[in-house]
Amino acid sequence: MLGGAGFIGSNLALRLSSLGATVTVVDGLIEGCGGNLANLDHAIPRERFLHLDLARQPVPDGLLSVTVVFDLMGDPAHGRSLVNPRRDLECNLLSQIALFEALRKIRRPPLVVLASTRQVYGRAQSLPVSEDHPLAPPDPNGIHKVAAEQYASVYGHVYGVRAILLRLTNVYGPRQGNADPAHGVAGFLIGRLMRGEPVLLYGGGTFRRDWLYVDDAVEALLAAGTRESANGRVFNIGHDRPVSLREFALKARELVGAGEVRDVPFPPEQRVIDVGDYWTDPRRAAEQLGWRASTSLFEGLRATIEFYRSRPGGERWPP
Amino acid sequence: MLGGAGFIGSNLALRLSSLGATVTVVDGLIEGCGGNLANLDHAIPRERFLHLDLARQPVPDGLLSVTVVFDLMGDPAHGRSLVNPRRDLECNLLSQIALFEALRKIRRPPLVVLASTRQVYGRAQSLPVSEDHPLAPPDPNGIHKVAAEQYASVYGHVYGVRAILLRLTNVYGPRQGNADPAHGVAGFLIGRLMRGEPVLLYGGGTFRRDWLYVDDAVEALLAAGTRESANGRVFNIGHDRPVSLREFALKARELVGAGEVRDVPFPPEQRVIDVGDYWTDPRRAAEQLGWRASTSLFEGLRATIEFYRSRPGGERWPP
Repeated sequence: MLGGAGFIGSNLALRLSSLGATVTVVDGLIEGCGGNLANLDHAIPRERFLHLDLARQPVPDGLLSVTVVFDLMGDPAHGRSLVNPRRDLECNLLSQIALFEALRKIRRPPLVVLASTRQVYGRAQSLPVSEDHPLAPPDPNGIHKVAAEQYASVYGHVYGVRAILLRLTNVYGPRQGNADPAHGVAGFLIGRLMRGEPVLLYGGGTFRRDWLYVDDAVEALLAAGTRESANGRVFNIGHDRPVSLREFALKARELVGAGEVRDVPFPPEQRVIDVGDYWTDPRRAAEQLGWRASTSLFEGLRATIEFYRSRPGGERWPP
Repeated sequence: MLGGAGFIGSNLALRLSSLGATVTVVDGLIEGCGGNLANLDHAIPRERFLHLDLARQPVPDGLLSVTVVFDLMGDPAHGRSLVNPRRDLECNLLSQIALFEALRKIRRPPLVVLASTRQVYGRAQSLPVSEDHPLAPPDPNGIHKVAAEQYASVYGHVYGVRAILLRLTNVYGPRQGNADPAHGVAGFLIGRLMRGEPVLLYGGGTFRRDWLYVDDAVEALLAAGTRESANGRVFNIGHDRPVSLREFALKARELVGAGEVRDVPFPPEQRVIDVGDYWTDPRRAAEQLGWRASTSLFEGLRATIEFYRSRPGGERWPP
């Protein structure tokens, strides 16, 4: 489990651990990337956690002698990648190169489940977005995610490294950072409501997304990890039902029980990188992974808010 | 002119200089990337040459205060990128990021003509290959070239940096390195014939390519540099007529006047990265750039061999 102290990684690590699996959690704990030991709830034994940045440190012998590598490494921040593309390149691509280089040297490498992002598509040319939609990443973060996917393809073709790629949509849920917009608009919006700060909707928040609760994302990762037959394939992972940011914010306000949701004009520097509506064609994942999102927005939001409330200082997560 | 001491860059620099243009030639002269002062024929004044590696050194003030930036930076070696992908990333992507970051800070940035490669397509799914063919780079070098193209798109969209992308096919001609296969199969093949070494054709050399003489590539770059209206577009640049590697080798042997061309079985490690037949659909470049390849294989090969012969030690270029 690489990037296993981050938002999605930690949820997956805890789920695997609760299933009785032996999990080694690796995380570079790099400032801004979302990895934080608080996410692991003291449920992962100290000796199963490895503080390691694959971009800068060698891969220890035996680390990859496992059945499945869940690869959730990287910096998810789109906006920051425009401010500092070189940092984004280092966080998102050097670590992937190091991983695939290490994998190709193993006689029988493990199956890799690589978490990619809907961001590789950029602005949707048609909806819902299937896996054959052209790739047009709108920022350096998306560019580096495309490159990471292509690394998986090349190492598969040349060296037989097996990998399944999941392009995740906007994920939200427990353990998502909620005090920094770099960790995703969903968590940030909930955090602001919980802190009594107004939520600002650019241009009315009309764009629609297929918000995905993190437990559903975790199930998709697990499904891929047990479907070796899907080796070499890519899957869009999102909810079936698109919901506008406005609707998401109003539902969150209702569940928080307070807060202000305010319309503001679209800032020009945001408009230029905004990709607008996006929702997933879930058919390939349903047919080939047997996976479909099952958590309603109501349930997902309620569980998320409950998580933040259950932790001291949880309205600014990670603490 | 970035990468202006390399194979194609130097030919372009000399052509521009002969046209009376003021050219600043920048090259990092990085081992293995093809840049060599011998390529410039003492025709570029010392004060117009800048030894600079954009991946590692800051961009000097004023360097980009020009009308057109011809961007031919990078390492062209596909095979080496599999041996050392991190080096390829540094040579091919860090320099591009540095360039685009510098360009976005200029009030009225120059037009960029970025030399990309047919390698971004990987194995052709249909022939001839148009610009809409899916991208499936077969090696890290191709992955990083895709990313460089996407940088141009993102910086165009977000910051208004203007760029035209040319995906060049197999280019050959004077100043191509002929002693190291990393600089291209065409030059290496001619060099071996000139040195009296046998030319080995994997699997009979049956794959066909639209070999492009470097003067034609230079004309395409110049055409793009004067077609600001093509901003944001991508063009395939190749010859109209595909020729097998065998035919290319036999024609070269005829013109060298000696040499041995021998069939050998395809080495497995080559077969896995071989992309087979490739030729360009030249229509978009013809229609929108007014460019078409005009040099026959006979003329191109004759001029290439003549160049190597005219230089002391030219059968091992660069000297």
